[in-house]
Amino acid sequence: MKGRITVQLKAGVLDVEGTAIARALGSLGFTASEVRVGRVFEVELGPEVANDPAGAALVLTDMARKLLANPVMERFEVEVLDGASGAA
Amino acid sequence: MKGRITVQLKAGVLDVEGTAIARALGSLGFTASEVRVGRVFEVELGPEVANDPAGAALVLTDMARKLLANPVMERFEVEVLDGASGAA
Repeated sequence: MKGRITVQLKAGVLDVEGTAIARALGSLGFTASEVRVGRVFEVELGPEVANDPAGAALVLTDMARKLLANPVMERFEVEVLDGASGAA
Repeated sequence: MKGRITVQLKAGVLDVEGTAIARALGSLGFTASEVRVGRVFEVELGPEVANDPAGAALVLTDMARKLLANPVMERFEVEVLDGASGAA
């Protein structure tokens, strides 16, 4: 079973890279008043959560909490790619 | 109108960071046979595409082509957050 974890800076945290990208888009003629950059992890999960979307979502949340997201500055969302989804 | 551009390495391209993360997850007791890492850009678009999801999707695709994705190694997906979605 496959899942996706999306990690982004929390709303109040300054996104320097996003600001630079917004400026670069402006110089290419686009209008982008704000850009926020995040990271996405597509994870192929093990057989222990096969056919168990709820269990897979829990595992993904646990992965985000323990390794992939910094809870001080970042928020994350998990998505099971063959079923349910959740956020935190 | 808001949109999201997700950029990921193409299937055949070695994802070194993803491999390192899969190994780190393994050492934490998780089973992740594969991890692929990508970047996500949330863009607040200008007023010229307000109430025009199809136009917004075109603008997002254009942004990805011209600045955010490397067409040789990466694929991208665009998503209009108040409506339609598309991929390339």
